[in-house]
Amino acid sequence: MMATTTRRGRRPGSPDTRATILAGARSLFAENGYAGTSVRAVAAAAGVDAALVHHYFGTKDDLFLAALELPVDPRQLVAPVVAGGPDGAAERFLTVFLAAWDDPTIRPSLLAVARAVMDPAGSKLLTDGFLPVVIQPVGVALGLDRPEHRMTLVASQVLGIILLRYVLSVEPLASMPRDTVIATYGPTLQRYLTGPLP
Amino acid sequence: MMATTTRRGRRPGSPDTRATILAGARSLFAENGYAGTSVRAVAAAAGVDAALVHHYFGTKDDLFLAALELPVDPRQLVAPVVAGGPDGAAERFLTVFLAAWDDPTIRPSLLAVARAVMDPAGSKLLTDGFLPVVIQPVGVALGLDRPEHRMTLVASQVLGIILLRYVLSVEPLASMPRDTVIATYGPTLQRYLTGPLP
Repeated sequence: MMATTTRRGRRPGSPDTRATILAGARSLFAENGYAGTSVRAVAAAAGVDAALVHHYFGTKDDLFLAALELPVDPRQLVAPVVAGGPDGAAERFLTVFLAAWDDPTIRPSLLAVARAVMDPAGSKLLTDGFLPVVIQPVGVALGLDRPEHRMTLVASQVLGIILLRYVLSVEPLASMPRDTVIATYGPTLQRYLTGPLP
Repeated sequence: MMATTTRRGRRPGSPDTRATILAGARSLFAENGYAGTSVRAVAAAAGVDAALVHHYFGTKDDLFLAALELPVDPRQLVAPVVAGGPDGAAERFLTVFLAAWDDPTIRPSLLAVARAVMDPAGSKLLTDGFLPVVIQPVGVALGLDRPEHRMTLVASQVLGIILLRYVLSVEPLASMPRDTVIATYGPTLQRYLTGPLP
């Protein structure tokens, strides 16, 4: 005979509460996107109070990034890119981007995220999640004109690099030395960030 | 009681022979890639003679493209791009590429192919199929130096456009007028084709 349990009865301090919140957040963000998911809804799905979600995970942005299970906080990663201003931002971005992806302790997790967001079921994690939470703010922080427009162009090239170099390992891109990747794609990304555009 | 049937007994002229060959080709190309799949193997899987496969589908390249079920032959599409030579090739390519994708009678089939090749299970259709059969030959026909290198860079940007503009419908790219897309990405692709590269 099984003991009667209810979701509402879950103790806030139980060891799996954090995991339960995270699982609920992951599923709600994937289904409804970042904008369509409230911390309150995540809390309700886990049978806990919203305050407990904030206690464990911080802001809604923090919760979103925790749900993606990224091994690094991409906002910390791009902080030096933003701090240096628009000039040379593309080269600084490619440097931190490639260092993260080429780190064997980080790459597997990034690959899992890349596969998840490119899958139709998880595409809202990218379009209504990663793009507005991580990518677009970089353009705003850099003080670009038309930041959303320019950062979408940047994303269109960076996603292609991720797909061919890391997900599909297409040569010669997969084995290309990091400096060559930076020299190849730097001018493209810098034009998207600060160059003249139609 | 079921009638006894064998694959070997399938009549070459039966109405579903063509479909059977195509299904076998699709599955073998997806599993083993273009280079790892022979017309003979496709014929064996369908229980027919290799000559019949050639009769229905032409060359191995033709069979591969038929298996992708593209609504247009991409080799015909890029023929005018190649014919015009390297100068302005990026703009001509973007023009035919966008015309095909923006055609409502063609786009659904292209989307299905894009989803299939971005899926891990079908990634060989892209890496050991679409890239060597359709993309790389463009660079060779244009007489580019390092054609494989340059066409891989082109692919890295074009795949990002497909992903954001068509598969995920990310704004402002999804609604961007065709001329603006051409003016935005033309300089990038032309540099990848003919510009100085590290």
